This record gives sequence, C-alpha cells and structure tokens, in this order.
Amino acid sequence: MEYETPLFFRVMEYASQAEGDVIDMVSGNPDWEPPESLRDGLREYADLEPDAFQYPPSPGLHELREEIAARRGVDAEQVVVTNGAGEANYLAMARALERDRGDEIVLADPVYPYYPGKTTMLGGTQTYVSTAENGQLDPAAVREAASEDTAAIVANSPNNPTGAVYPEETVRELVAIAEEYDAVLVSDEVYDHFDLAGNFSSALEVESDHRIVTNAFSKSLAITGFRVGYAIFPPELVENAKSRHMLVNVAGSRPSQYAVLQALRETDPDYYERNRDLLRERVDAFTDALDAAGASYTEPEGAFYVMARFEDYPGTLENVFELIDEAGVAGMPGTAFGDSRSDWIRFALVTPRVEEAADRLAAYFE
Amino acid sequence: MEYETPLFFRVMEYASQAEGDVIDMVSGNPDWEPPESLRDGLREYADLEPDAFQYPPSPGLHELREEIAARRGVDAEQVVVTNGAGEANYLAMARALERDRGDEIVLADPVYPYYPGKTTMLGGTQTYVSTAENGQLDPAAVREAASEDTAAIVANSPNNPTGAVYPEETVRELVAIAEEYDAVLVSDEVYDHFDLAGNFSSALEVESDHRIVTNAFSKSLAITGFRVGYAIFPPELVENAKSRHMLVNVAGSRPSQYAVLQALRETDPDYYERNRDLLRERVDAFTDALDAAGASYTEPEGAFYVMARFEDYPGTLENVFELIDEAGVAGMPGTAFGDSRSDWIRFALVTPRVEEAADRLAAYFE
Repeated sequence: MEYETPLFFRVMEYASQAEGDVIDMVSGNPDWEPPESLRDGLREYADLEPDAFQYPPSPGLHELREEIAARRGVDAEQVVVTNGAGEANYLAMARALERDRGDEIVLADPVYPYYPGKTTMLGGTQTYVSTAENGQLDPAAVREAASEDTAAIVANSPNNPTGAVYPEETVRELVAIAEEYDAVLVSDEVYDHFDLAGNFSSALEVESDHRIVTNAFSKSLAITGFRVGYAIFPPELVENAKSRHMLVNVAGSRPSQYAVLQALRETDPDYYERNRDLLRERVDAFTDALDAAGASYTEPEGAFYVMARFEDYPGTLENVFELIDEAGVAGMPGTAFGDSRSDWIRFALVTPRVEEAADRLAAYFE
Repeated sequence: MEYETPLFFRVMEYASQAEGDVIDMVSGNPDWEPPESLRDGLREYADLEPDAFQYPPSPGLHELREEIAARRGVDAEQVVVTNGAGEANYLAMARALERDRGDEIVLADPVYPYYPGKTTMLGGTQTYVSTAENGQLDPAAVREAASEDTAAIVANSPNNPTGAVYPEETVRELVAIAEEYDAVLVSDEVYDHFDLAGNFSSALEVESDHRIVTNAFSKSLAITGFRVGYAIFPPELVENAKSRHMLVNVAGSRPSQYAVLQALRETDPDYYERNRDLLRERVDAFTDALDAAGASYTEPEGAFYVMARFEDYPGTLENVFELIDEAGVAGMPGTAFGDSRSDWIRFALVTPRVEEAADRLAAYFE
C-alpha cells in the first residue's frame, strides 16, 4: 500500500528554506496565545507525584471525559479522548468501515487531504461530491452519490479549506442520508469555535445512532502540538472504537490532557470571542486587499482560511513555490484539496501580516 | 471485527473497587521518580512562545530524533517518534503486513496481549511458539513455525511477562529467520534499561533490512503517561511508516517530546542504575518470600515482572479476583498471556511493598 504524503510538509519545507522574507500562510497553526490557565495546568502537572506521570485511562482522563460530555450533552461513556482530531477521524472512519456495510467513503470536493489518505489506508474507496463555488454541500448531490456500498459520509463544518459553514438543514439531511443507507455520518467539527458568522450547527443536535462527531482543542485553545481531541460515538459503536484506540495508542498524553482540562475549566468565553474577532479582522483586511488586487476569493463563514484565485495562475505546487520565491507569501496549492479547486490557492490567516501578504500578492500580480 | 479488551483494565478496575487494602502489582507503571530534568523540561516548555505549542514535525521534534539516532547509531531519517511503544509496535506490525509477503505474525507464548490484538486489528493471523519454562525462545522452534506466509516475527526482550532476556545468538538467529522468509523481525526493546543480569542484546546490533526496533521512554524515564516512544526502520521501510503515523496521529504530543528531550540530555547513567538496583532488591525480596511460601516462580533476568505459580491454584481471572479480595494482592492472570502460562500469575514489582505482598500470599496459601 502506498500513501501520498500530504503536500503541507513539502510546501512548509520549501518556504522554510526560501531566501527572502516569506509570510507563512500554509498550515492551520494558530499564532495567537493559548489560555494562561493552560500554561498553569502544565506548571502544576510538573510538580505532581510520580503516579500522575503514568498511563491515564485509555479513553482519557476521567474528569476530562466528564467535562467534554457535560459540555456536549452526551454520556461520558460515549467520549473517547484522542491524539487530536487526526486520531478521532481515523477511529471514526475505521469504525464506520468495520461495520461491514460497505467500503465507500463519501467526501466533499474540495477535501481536507487527510480524509482520502485515511480512506486508502483503511482499505476504503473514495466517492467525491463537488461543493458549490461558495463551498456549500448540497444534500441532494450527496444522496445521489451515496449507495448501498457507502460506509460513511465525512463532513467538515466549518470547512477547511472553503470556510463554508453548513446550515442546520444540511447537517440534518446528511444524518438522514447516513441512516437511509445504513452508513455513518462522520462530522468533523474541529473549527466549531471559529463560527465567524453564527451559522454553525453541530451534528450532535440531530439524535441518531448513525453519526459520529469529532473535535479537538488544537484550534480552539491554540495548541495543535498538544494532540488532545475527542470523538463522540453512538453507544453501540463506542466499544470497538475504544479497543482500536487502545491497540493503536494505548492512551493519549497525560500532561497534555491535564493542561487541557485546566484550560477548559478556567477559560472564559471572552477568550474564544477575542480570537473570533481577531480572525474577522484578518478576513476583512486580507479580502479587502484581494479586492484591490482584482482577485476572486471565497468569503469564509468560519474556520481560518481564504481561498483565492488569480487570473491565469492555477493553484499548482509550482505556482505556490513561485509565489514563495517571488512574492514572499506561502499558501497551499488548491490541487492539494482535489480537482475542483485546482485554480485556487488557500491562505491560512494565522499571521498578523495578512494585509501585507495581500499587498505583496497584489504587487506581484499587478 | 471484534477485539478483546485487554484484561489489564478489568483487573485494575476490580482492584480499585475492592474494599480492603490491596497491593497493586497489576500494571507496568513505575512507582519511582522520573528524572528532575524531565520536570524542568515541562516547566520550561510552559513558558515558551505560542509557536512552540503548535504541531511538532510529524515524525518527531528534530532534536529528539537526532538524539535518539545518535544514541542508537542510526540515521535520524530512520527514526519515527511515536505515541509510546504501543504506536511503535502498531506501525512496525502494519508495515510488515503491508509488504504483502504474508499475513502471519509469529509470536511467543506467553505473549504480551497487545501483540495478538494488533495482529487481528490489522487483518493478520497469529502463530505461536511456546517458550521454555524460563521464558527463553528457541530459534529452531521459531524457524519451524515460520513459513512463506510469515510477515513478521515479534520478539520482546527483556520480556514481559517472563523476565527472560534473549542472548545475542537468539537475536541474531531471529533476524536470520526473518531474512530467510522475506519477513521482518519486530524487536520490542522497551525494557532495555531493565537488563538486570547484563545479558541484553539489541537487534540493532545485527545489520539487516529485515528488522524494526521499537522502544519508548515510558519505563526508562518512569513516564508511561507521556506517550513518547520510537521505532527504527530500515531505510526502505520508513517512508510508508511515516505516512501511516501521519494519517493516524498527525504527530505526537509536543510538551511530552520536549520534556523527554530535556531528560535524555541531562539525566546521568546513575539514574538508570539506581532504578535497576531498586528492582534487583525487589526481585530478591519478593522471590525470597515466595520461596518461603513454597511457590514456584521464574527468576527475571530483566523487565520488572515475576511469574509465580501456587499449587492447585491456576492463573484464572476468577482466582486473581479472589486474591484481591482475600489476600489483598492484585496480579495479572497468566491466562491473559496465552495458553502456556495459564497456571501462573504475573506480579509487577512496581510497589515498595513487594515483600509484604509476598508475605500476604504466603499467609493466604498456608
């Protein structure tokens, strides 16, 4: 079996070796501060007795599962704390395929490239549904693409890379389609705290035994390197997922889980609101400059990416390398996200220099 | 697909809910101090800039891979830092099966129960080779059990649960058998720092493209909850393993990796020697008391377990529960490790109360 290494790493490597000053807008790494209580949690943990340094319970620290369950309105037994959303999606997709109801995973195009990578690794096949230009997913198109062979539909809202946020009707319909085909909706909601326009709707709001919700604290607490995420399974699907988690990772990292628990308990809503405000400002600054440059772009409703299109300049890896060298701005090639966005380039708004970046792009394309 | 949840968790849960005082000798959680530099590493990390809280490189922090590579005499490109030895073994076994040279995994009996669990999860089949009563693995028996369908031989030395340490000739022969059958030796060496009799030999000392070595800092630094381990692959096997690691976990926990790097750099050999001395004392105290009780046992050459057998008292889960309730000592049923040790019970020497535990057992069986 061969896997394709995500392009992210090739682009980041190229950007880091470039000669001039490059504004890095490649990867979804927040550049803002984690909550102070998270740092306090780590400091506190460093002084604990040796037994606190040993295996946490395999599905996660008990209090952390309870905290997540209370916030999400589910039973703690349904929660598996994972090594980030990456492992959460892996467990969810594996669980769907293990039901032996089919091998097909229905994905949106454009797609977050880890999903097709995981599908291949798990022995499944990909079926793509093109989204509208604004990134919205049409449930009718998903229903048409789905079949008796569908094991899962993977949805991501707020969406990476398009910034689309699916309305409640879409989420409800996606769950219904999963039920119709005896499949599972895997709803990756890792950007839920970056619902910039207030349209977000969680799949947890739709009661069903056919949906798994995945999430992480990577983005909401600005700690992509801590690797603390979770998946919420229907009761009859959770046991095998816990076993797989145990057989792959034994457990997650306890200092990370401890610090996240502290941060969840002590961080007030202002923290999240401030980060949303920051992103709204950056979206405005970046898109205003893109307007001035005559570029097309999608106005994100959520997450922290803007996809832009420059005339006669397709979103190839070659062009992205050229922009790094010639314009001093690093984005992600649209080709990384599937066929439908091959003319586009994705920019992550994780730098205070978004306006400068857009100005550089404008100057380059002038 | 169904997996059996390791018995560990059932026994630990039972022990934790018992009424009286129970000496916990179930799981391999060190009860001694991690190095102070590890704590310092965490404290230092807590004060770093936000960019240090984001994704580490997927195969691990660069300096940590370099440090491991230098210590093990390999190229850093061959090293994948994993979420503990658990993920390292998972990646190694998956990589062996992906070579499409067979579906069979050759395992020793008694066996560390995660190996057969991972085998089933990965779609392989188990073939067992019984070890001698002292836990030694006879290469001739492994050669006989192996076949053209063999994907991997999984060896663990120092061994959990027997305490056997395989001599250099055994390790050399296991690599040779893997080569003969175009298979891979997966050598799990997580207890290498607990080579109590000085007989340990790493598979890294045998040059071959047919061996993968796995390890972790869980036991050597007394941090099973940090989840930092590694696998060393032959150059032609490493790329796909990195891809799988990325697709499953994205990356490991950065605070954990940072603290481990600090500890590796600053912990002197005395730390490891002190812990070996402590274990040698505990082995002596525990086995002396077992002698007095007339029990049979295996004298461990490494790792930190003693397997004991009491007359007419097989190592069933039921009997282990009874010992928890009636004797106040919690061990692991021998049945958890395969057929050949079903008369035995494993005790982990991770409590200062080993002598008291043996006395309690002696009193119970008197």
